[in-house]
Amino acid sequence: MSTSAASVCVVGSVAFDSIETPSGSAADVLGGSCSYFAVAASFFAPVNMVAIVGSDFPQAERDFLDSRGINLDGLEVVDGRTFRWTGRYHEDMNVRDTLDLQLNVFADFSPQLPESYRDSELVFLANIQPGLQSRVLSQLRSLKLVGADTMDHWIDEDRDALLELLADVDLLSINDSEAAQLSGEANVVAAARSILEMGPDTLLIKRGEYGALQFSADDIFAVPAYPLEHVIDPTGAGDCFAGGLFGSLAAAGEVDRKSLRRAIVHGSVLASFAVEDFGLNRLKRLTREDVDARFRQFMALTDFHG
Amino acid sequence: MSTSAASVCVVGSVAFDSIETPSGSAADVLGGSCSYFAVAASFFAPVNMVAIVGSDFPQAERDFLDSRGINLDGLEVVDGRTFRWTGRYHEDMNVRDTLDLQLNVFADFSPQLPESYRDSELVFLANIQPGLQSRVLSQLRSLKLVGADTMDHWIDEDRDALLELLADVDLLSINDSEAAQLSGEANVVAAARSILEMGPDTLLIKRGEYGALQFSADDIFAVPAYPLEHVIDPTGAGDCFAGGLFGSLAAAGEVDRKSLRRAIVHGSVLASFAVEDFGLNRLKRLTREDVDARFRQFMALTDFHG
Repeated sequence: MSTSAASVCVVGSVAFDSIETPSGSAADVLGGSCSYFAVAASFFAPVNMVAIVGSDFPQAERDFLDSRGINLDGLEVVDGRTFRWTGRYHEDMNVRDTLDLQLNVFADFSPQLPESYRDSELVFLANIQPGLQSRVLSQLRSLKLVGADTMDHWIDEDRDALLELLADVDLLSINDSEAAQLSGEANVVAAARSILEMGPDTLLIKRGEYGALQFSADDIFAVPAYPLEHVIDPTGAGDCFAGGLFGSLAAAGEVDRKSLRRAIVHGSVLASFAVEDFGLNRLKRLTREDVDARFRQFMALTDFHG
Repeated sequence: MSTSAASVCVVGSVAFDSIETPSGSAADVLGGSCSYFAVAASFFAPVNMVAIVGSDFPQAERDFLDSRGINLDGLEVVDGRTFRWTGRYHEDMNVRDTLDLQLNVFADFSPQLPESYRDSELVFLANIQPGLQSRVLSQLRSLKLVGADTMDHWIDEDRDALLELLADVDLLSINDSEAAQLSGEANVVAAARSILEMGPDTLLIKRGEYGALQFSADDIFAVPAYPLEHVIDPTGAGDCFAGGLFGSLAAAGEVDRKSLRRAIVHGSVLASFAVEDFGLNRLKRLTREDVDARFRQFMALTDFHG
């Protein structure tokens, strides 16, 4: 990647979530993998969003996304209701139950990229059906970096399409249980070795409150999670991690060992803010100065070199 | 602490362990908190050991400990058998069952420090009954740094004695479930805040394969565990962590933010080697050069500053 200030194209879901956690509850907050990713990435670079919403999608949310420098040319609006998800987190917030899921207009999503997006050099395929992720890839003609996420459901139910996609993915971002499931290996190092053979050059394994590990053929990087006393809502933390990471890489203009490590810390920073309030509420009042201050706190948290 | 190359005094158990893990098994290997701590610390500083063994304790093990620069003047030998423990680890090696426990001569342990130990400036009270830990403290007259470990059993069954001890402890080293149990707080930051109010200035929370967090009133340090593809036997990893930490602090001669952080990484290094073979087998063939090389690998693993 040679251009600086490149934009990031992201495809995924936009939803309204109703969430109950041990800390409280929130109804109908803006969510979905594409929303979390796009808002997190927007702290670093312009974002081109590809998603679908219903005719109920409020102008206020469009205005918010627009205010973050997010291009909505690829946000398809169709008659009907936007995707809705209702979930409840356990006392151990690593565990949650889906209480209700209404795909609504998302059920017929077939991503179609506007002409203005087709020269995007960075794309992130947030968690949707692997066939749709591949369909987005085929519409891009200047790709330099392809990132993807997935989930247990696709690993189990659509493995062939996922493996086909992975051959074209540069950076896969999944959590530790998904890595174990995809590879059949319980040990995280063995799992990473196996997944790198499926295609990606870089694997990011997210471990929630324990941080993240990044593997490539000849390098491992570890970053802790920022220790938080009050976690309000973990929804979207992984998508914000990926958004911060890709936004930071787009801003750096080059993908090398140094920019990738800084980008992973930027991902950790955005994820740490995301969980401090319901939905995107914390990110709605976040500033770039807050981001930079917490990046410095990550340096202080991990430094034993000086 | 102003002297350099200070020695570390440690009290704890010496045992013979028979261990079964998903990777294999080993019978009657040298173990116990005091053995693990002492051998790990000996890579950095002289160690004064306080423990009890039976008349069955082999000369070969004495010779090994002696070869590591460990002073055995405080290793009491009495008629009878040495402490024996038999345990089996689950596929998830964070879980283990005790199959057999024979305290033997350890049941009557009442630590008595040789005169030559009484000016030790650093002491580590490895996991034994809190009353015995306090008894050791009262025999030391030049203390600069008091470290301690404990376990779920004492937190439940001997809480008053433990709290009394903690008032005199500078650095408490426990694992995450013990921190939650001691504080009654599930969140690790809240748990740390609560435990720091019990006496220790510094709290080290060990999180197994996820690394460790160090808390003090105004500082948090996080270090990942070294990612290992093959973990053979987790027994003693926490004691080796504490041994590496205290040995490194003794060698540094000063306890400040920098030496403490380096010492915690040294603890992580020793713990990472310890689990690579049964009992102390890996440490028996370890060199200081291996230790320094893995310390540099920890720098490479965590660095995003340059």
